[in-house]
Amino acid sequence: MSKPISFLSDFGHDDEFVGVVHGVLAKLAPSSRVIDVGHRFPRGNIKAAALALTRAIQYLPEGVCLAVVDPGVGTDRKALAAETSWGTFIGPDNGLLSPAVAMVGGATKIVSIENPEGMIPSPGQTFHGRDVFAPAAALIASGDAAIDELGPQIPGEQIVPLLLPLTETTGSMISGEAWWVDTFGNVQTNIGPEDAAGLGINPGDTVTVKVGSTLHSVPWVSSYGDVAEGEALIHVDSVGLLALAVRGGRADLELNLGEGVAVTLAAKKSATAE
Amino acid sequence: MSKPISFLSDFGHDDEFVGVVHGVLAKLAPSSRVIDVGHRFPRGNIKAAALALTRAIQYLPEGVCLAVVDPGVGTDRKALAAETSWGTFIGPDNGLLSPAVAMVGGATKIVSIENPEGMIPSPGQTFHGRDVFAPAAALIASGDAAIDELGPQIPGEQIVPLLLPLTETTGSMISGEAWWVDTFGNVQTNIGPEDAAGLGINPGDTVTVKVGSTLHSVPWVSSYGDVAEGEALIHVDSVGLLALAVRGGRADLELNLGEGVAVTLAAKKSATAE
Amino acid sequence: MSKPISFLSDFGHDDEFVGVVHGVLAKLAPSSRVIDVGHRFPRGNIKAAALALTRAIQYLPEGVCLAVVDPGVGTDRKALAAETSWGTFIGPDNGLLSPAVAMVGGATKIVSIENPEGMIPSPGQTFHGRDVFAPAAALIASGDAAIDELGPQIPGEQIVPLLLPLTETTGSMISGEAWWVDTFGNVQTNIGPEDAAGLGINPGDTVTVKVGSTLHSVPWVSSYGDVAEGEALIHVDSVGLLALAVRGGRADLELNLGEGVAVTLAAKKSATAE
Repeated sequence: MSKPISFLSDFGHDDEFVGVVHGVLAKLAPSSRVIDVGHRFPRGNIKAAALALTRAIQYLPEGVCLAVVDPGVGTDRKALAAETSWGTFIGPDNGLLSPAVAMVGGATKIVSIENPEGMIPSPGQTFHGRDVFAPAAALIASGDAAIDELGPQIPGEQIVPLLLPLTETTGSMISGEAWWVDTFGNVQTNIGPEDAAGLGINPGDTVTVKVGSTLHSVPWVSSYGDVAEGEALIHVDSVGLLALAVRGGRADLELNLGEGVAVTLAAKKSATAE
Repeated sequence: MSKPISFLSDFGHDDEFVGVVHGVLAKLAPSSRVIDVGHRFPRGNIKAAALALTRAIQYLPEGVCLAVVDPGVGTDRKALAAETSWGTFIGPDNGLLSPAVAMVGGATKIVSIENPEGMIPSPGQTFHGRDVFAPAAALIASGDAAIDELGPQIPGEQIVPLLLPLTETTGSMISGEAWWVDTFGNVQTNIGPEDAAGLGINPGDTVTVKVGSTLHSVPWVSSYGDVAEGEALIHVDSVGLLALAVRGGRADLELNLGEGVAVTLAAKKSATAE
Repeated sequence: MSKPISFLSDFGHDDEFVGVVHGVLAKLAPSSRVIDVGHRFPRGNIKAAALALTRAIQYLPEGVCLAVVDPGVGTDRKALAAETSWGTFIGPDNGLLSPAVAMVGGATKIVSIENPEGMIPSPGQTFHGRDVFAPAAALIASGDAAIDELGPQIPGEQIVPLLLPLTETTGSMISGEAWWVDTFGNVQTNIGPEDAAGLGINPGDTVTVKVGSTLHSVPWVSSYGDVAEGEALIHVDSVGLLALAVRGGRADLELNLGEGVAVTLAAKKSATAE
């Protein structure tokens, strides 16, 4: 029984790259279902794609995850296959896989994909998605190869990590950042509701949100319908993190909050006491 | 035998939203084929997506239709499952499903999806595509649940309709609107050939097309090849409505006809007699 | 056993066109896997899509190829089905299929799709992807029809060819053109490494690249990692042609090389001797 393959890349849809990888998968794992997690993550932005994969992984069918955001293709970065309780992750050794692998409990085995027998011979060395990663994913998904046949095992501490920003609590304030703006303009922070609870900020409170030197008073509600059209709100989003939204609008534009921008939360009364 | 699922949304392809819904469907209905009807309809534009679904429905394999354009997520709008002779439609109660359901002959039963057993528990309340609609679609497609298990039945007259503009005949003129500009710039009107025939306008005639205060003389032909490169034409389009096109060009730009713009047709001689 | 169908078009993803074709394929060939080669090739640009298909074809599973870039829909251009050793190609007779068919060794039989029994009756004549090509592809893929049932056989010399630019060698220089800029900004030329070798230009050499009146000295390396970040390189790309790239950048912008722009290569010493 062939396993499903979840495929993520930054190839976009303007060329035939995604289609060619699908072709390779269909040839080598003809009975595997392929799920496109997404292919329009910002070019070469490992962090953005890694966070998307981390948000998605628990909703993807167990099997094989093929992820290719690979600005270092053609350098000596390794190609990895990581075995986990969810299944096998295949991709470049640049941090892309790390948070999703951690999310499902970590890798029980990691190999460096080096065995040329599992690769497609190519005139050039620039399309490892097609020539190296897709064949490896198909071999694992179809059961035609075990992970050890792809190459030598390497210790987890040699893998390139992805450094993600941590939140910081200072007095009554918690500082973090906007780490994802979705296509609706909703801004996810890296601050969890339990971080806020530690400061005594809870659902139902009005929260002071500081972006740059601007303070906004924003109610923490449970859904968009709890505020009027056009008003800002803070809520626990579909992934479980605190997020800023504007009902019927775009929080990124109205609060001036792009990806990576620092954001500080405080309980309303502490903020006004400053 | 698992039924195919046709999936339409306004999620776009920049995030992992579409992929996550595919993941949920693959987990819960692993042998259902999933057809992407389209995911780049204008954000929150219920009418545009509803019209697209109506144009598409007769070409989609009978089974389950999962449609999510849901600007009211997080308010108290209902989640619907509607049984029809084509199959089951799943989506928000905001008019999105109404014209396609009408197109296939109307619903024989409608339920409000409320049973939490069929939903995915979520920290937030903003991604009903993933947590409410996709699981319901998968349960119906796989045969794991009957529509009645999703929630209580509700009468059809409580469903939110989609108000679509009607055409109006005044003397020798018929007024309607441009209700779809396709990606090639072709402009579909809401005027059917039978409406025109009622005014004595028929294929082969030259038609006066009024947009704003500008009059255009446009031949009603049967295909693009019947006019010269760069010339405008009116024809019955692939859905059966009167549409304006420019051979090798964009009618929307050349005739200044965006979606929703009023357009009036008259037989050439009546127009010149004005 | 139903064959896979590889589907390419210029329909884009803003409308339901791609989804409707998938629907027709799912209805008529319910057990055929469908691979999207790509749908965002430039509108009506037969050459761009034909080259993409030619690059992709060897990676697609043998079966049926459905290709629709069809600016002449609604004229008297023919609809073709071409039998090859790879499988069957279906599409308009405008040069779109020619290079890919040639790449797999040429057609053993070509028919003009004319049999109305295999088509979907339509009110209009503008969506042959849905009404003519998709049903033909599904009939062949499912085995429900042989190619001869689609219409009369026509001789290969009546097919519209695709005229592709040739390279030209003058003294110590070889002139060609940029014929594909991929989404990463890499510029593929129509010059092969064997053409360069004929002039004594080989991997490891520094090559003089002339664009307009500007000369660039570019090293011919085997992969991106062989030059520093931000530097230009020439290499054999993943398809086997000479391509210009900038590590971590866009060669199209930095070398001013759009699709169709002339480019001349010479060995460094010959160039400086000029």
